[in-house]
Amino acid sequence: MSAYRTLETRFGRLGTLREALAVLNWDFSSMMPTGGAAARQAQLATLETLYHEQLTDPAIPDLIGEAEAAGGLDEWQSANLAEMRREWRAASVLPAALVEARVAAGLDCEMAWRRARPDDDFAAVVPALQRVLDLTREAAAAKASLLGISSYDALLDTYEPGGRAAAIDVLFEEVARFLPGLIDRILERQAAVPPPVDPPGPFPIAAQRAVAMRLMAQIGFDFDHGRLDTSLHPFCGGTPDDVRITTRYEEEDFGRALMGVLHETGHALYEQGLPAAWRRQPVGRARSFAVHESQSLLIEMQACRSREFAEFAAPILQEAFGGPAAAWDPDNLYRRNTIVARSLIRVDADEATYPLHVILRYRLERAMLSGDLRLSDLPGAWREAMRDLVGIEPTDDRDGCLQDIHWYCGLWGYFPSYTLGALTAAQFFEAATRQDAGIRPGLTRGDFAPLLAWLRRHVHGRAASVPVAEIVVDATGRALDTSAFQRHLERRYGGLH
Amino acid sequence: MSAYRTLETRFGRLGTLREALAVLNWDFSSMMPTGGAAARQAQLATLETLYHEQLTDPAIPDLIGEAEAAGGLDEWQSANLAEMRREWRAASVLPAALVEARVAAGLDCEMAWRRARPDDDFAAVVPALQRVLDLTREAAAAKASLLGISSYDALLDTYEPGGRAAAIDVLFEEVARFLPGLIDRILERQAAVPPPVDPPGPFPIAAQRAVAMRLMAQIGFDFDHGRLDTSLHPFCGGTPDDVRITTRYEEEDFGRALMGVLHETGHALYEQGLPAAWRRQPVGRARSFAVHESQSLLIEMQACRSREFAEFAAPILQEAFGGPAAAWDPDNLYRRNTIVARSLIRVDADEATYPLHVILRYRLERAMLSGDLRLSDLPGAWREAMRDLVGIEPTDDRDGCLQDIHWYCGLWGYFPSYTLGALTAAQFFEAATRQDAGIRPGLTRGDFAPLLAWLRRHVHGRAASVPVAEIVVDATGRALDTSAFQRHLERRYGGLH
Repeated sequence: MSAYRTLETRFGRLGTLREALAVLNWDFSSMMPTGGAAARQAQLATLETLYHEQLTDPAIPDLIGEAEAAGGLDEWQSANLAEMRREWRAASVLPAALVEARVAAGLDCEMAWRRARPDDDFAAVVPALQRVLDLTREAAAAKASLLGISSYDALLDTYEPGGRAAAIDVLFEEVARFLPGLIDRILERQAAVPPPVDPPGPFPIAAQRAVAMRLMAQIGFDFDHGRLDTSLHPFCGGTPDDVRITTRYEEEDFGRALMGVLHETGHALYEQGLPAAWRRQPVGRARSFAVHESQSLLIEMQACRSREFAEFAAPILQEAFGGPAAAWDPDNLYRRNTIVARSLIRVDADEATYPLHVILRYRLERAMLSGDLRLSDLPGAWREAMRDLVGIEPTDDRDGCLQDIHWYCGLWGYFPSYTLGALTAAQFFEAATRQDAGIRPGLTRGDFAPLLAWLRRHVHGRAASVPVAEIVVDATGRALDTSAFQRHLERRYGGLH
Repeated sequence: MSAYRTLETRFGRLGTLREALAVLNWDFSSMMPTGGAAARQAQLATLETLYHEQLTDPAIPDLIGEAEAAGGLDEWQSANLAEMRREWRAASVLPAALVEARVAAGLDCEMAWRRARPDDDFAAVVPALQRVLDLTREAAAAKASLLGISSYDALLDTYEPGGRAAAIDVLFEEVARFLPGLIDRILERQAAVPPPVDPPGPFPIAAQRAVAMRLMAQIGFDFDHGRLDTSLHPFCGGTPDDVRITTRYEEEDFGRALMGVLHETGHALYEQGLPAAWRRQPVGRARSFAVHESQSLLIEMQACRSREFAEFAAPILQEAFGGPAAAWDPDNLYRRNTIVARSLIRVDADEATYPLHVILRYRLERAMLSGDLRLSDLPGAWREAMRDLVGIEPTDDRDGCLQDIHWYCGLWGYFPSYTLGALTAAQFFEAATRQDAGIRPGLTRGDFAPLLAWLRRHVHGRAASVPVAEIVVDATGRALDTSAFQRHLERRYGGLH
């Protein structure tokens, strides 16, 4: 067997382990009773360790070198080999003990955070978080020195292969320049008209779930290869052949769960659209977290919060939930779906204010990693940054620095992907609707086929065969910038509506 | 670190892998959409392969030898070391390729069986089943030659450590001697009185589920460490810290799902009662499949189908489902729970006829393994054996040799455990109720504490620290025989009721 084929077998096994981990993680968040946590942590840590051991087997670099020297690979095989090297290199700098310690520290700290958050007790979680931060720094430094990049870029690389803080700084500074003024204008205009009408509840959970599944199927979610379940924090997990998305229902509000489902459906379509021929191979994976987020935001924000989609969804919602016709008028529904407000919680933020929440976290995590900001000073720094950036300040840490799980479970360098995803979604959707004039009218009939075809061709089907930048340039004709996002906000919110 | 401690670490990792497999298997049967099957098969096969690789690492026998030579272990540690050697020895005879091939052939054949069964097309599954049988024979022969036992005993050993067909023959011949006549008498007596009244349905699934969970909790199931879900075939899966039981509901009948839940609750109590200090170690596992089945049958058949428990359950069921009081009279409920009938399907059989279904399978699988019975002749041999043993004959293979998943997914040598479990359950329950006079009266109040305390002390808490035979003798004062089972049937069914 050629070195390349041997590598395909070995990385296929790694990909399979990764899938097993994904299922166990989904179960952890959606099914597992609380008493199962310690055993599940042991299971996850063991599989992560095995994964790392198999990936850092001394034979791997030899095989990679041999396959590179042998040549004769087609484009996708070459890309697969490059991804293998990338993954091996990132893992090879980390001793197995450090990998295991990071997993254990992340799970410990996540548990501490789950207790500390309802108690609004940031101090209680500081020791566990300090341990996570120390181990994160250690891992980042090792990877940075190998790749000759900064520590922050080394963390970023996990989520955004090839991503650099210098490039993010340019994009985020531009966003921070135009967004606050735009938000002021939007809020002024919204205040000048009566607010949209709220459909009266309650909205039975069974009916919400039925509508959500109806719309998921309409958009293109394949229920032979996926499920919809419930979890405290909505997410998209599982594997490309078996995508598990979750949401959380409230009887008093149908919108939050539904828009959450549509968001996760965007993620799911990406997974289900990855090329089946490259399953469990490095090149067959989603390209980056920002590209993933671009898919969820494209479906939720660009497509499903559009005036066009409100036309399609309104009668379905009216039929499911009843109540006065005025509340289910498409215009009213659209206005409800595009309310902008300064708010404390990132996951509840609208698309206009959301990037400011991300920029805040990006700045703070860089400061914590560099040592410029001590953990004990985080709550104060958070409040100050909220006041400056969003114009609103939390009165407790529950709604401040305890709100997101990321840092506590070890996800540092992850936050930028959300806003990179929003910029990318706007640029993709603008390009798609220019290239195919049938996409927007399709949404009024619930016909997502033209949009999905575009995404399959330009994004999903390419998987990790080319760098992020190449996907963006090929699909939209230019490198990622903030202009499409700005145009989108100006068009949607700039006029009275 | 001492050799023994090193082994504890290594087998702890194996135990953790085993837990991960258990969760993935539970998901496969209860949650997974059909399109996820191929990927899941790959995940399971990969973890099984890793398990086998880690278990057969050449360092393991050296460490075991070193630990045995070093001595200084306490009783449980010694038992743990003996279990390690037992598990390593059984695995070491099987080449990794054979292990992987068996897993793959079992999953393939299970899929073929899932298609063939509704079509009543046994011929369609024969090639896949032949492959499973061939690989099973190959594995059995390898293990048999190493252990100096017969091929069938080598298979049996997987489920019943130390179990021998010669001993089973004695027990099963005795059962086959007294049972048919007893069944004739029971059926005669039942026919002489009017049948019990069926409570009128329908029985809403939500109400069935609520009652099931109420009774599970009453019996002692810990919902912080387990769940109740739905699957096509009820089972008890998951891990000791997170036991997953399933059932299947029918709106027209409350009894089947409920008794199924109580059965699986017996399994679950065993898992939840295993000693926490020995989690994921070989000695900390359930002792054998027969002991496991003894726990489910003890809870379902001995305790929950008793006249005493009917007293407790009747008002709860009446409150949940409504309908005429006569249907919920405890005597009527008891009579409903103890109907005996000749039937075609093992899983639907009552406790009196059930052993005959098992003896049939035991005889047929031995004949197929030895080559005395060709697969193509199985349907005819099945019908003939049913006529002889149970006195009733299926008209198709769906209700004949296609009814059970076991042989198709590779579980050969498994069936005897069901009836060994029934005999053991009767002997345990008889001993328990003699030793603690409070157990039976407790059931009328739904107080399972005395019974559970006895089981925790005599069965659950001992895990795999001593051989099955020692558990039985210590708990009941004698080796396993058929007398308690016969006395139980005579007492429950011998008189008119």
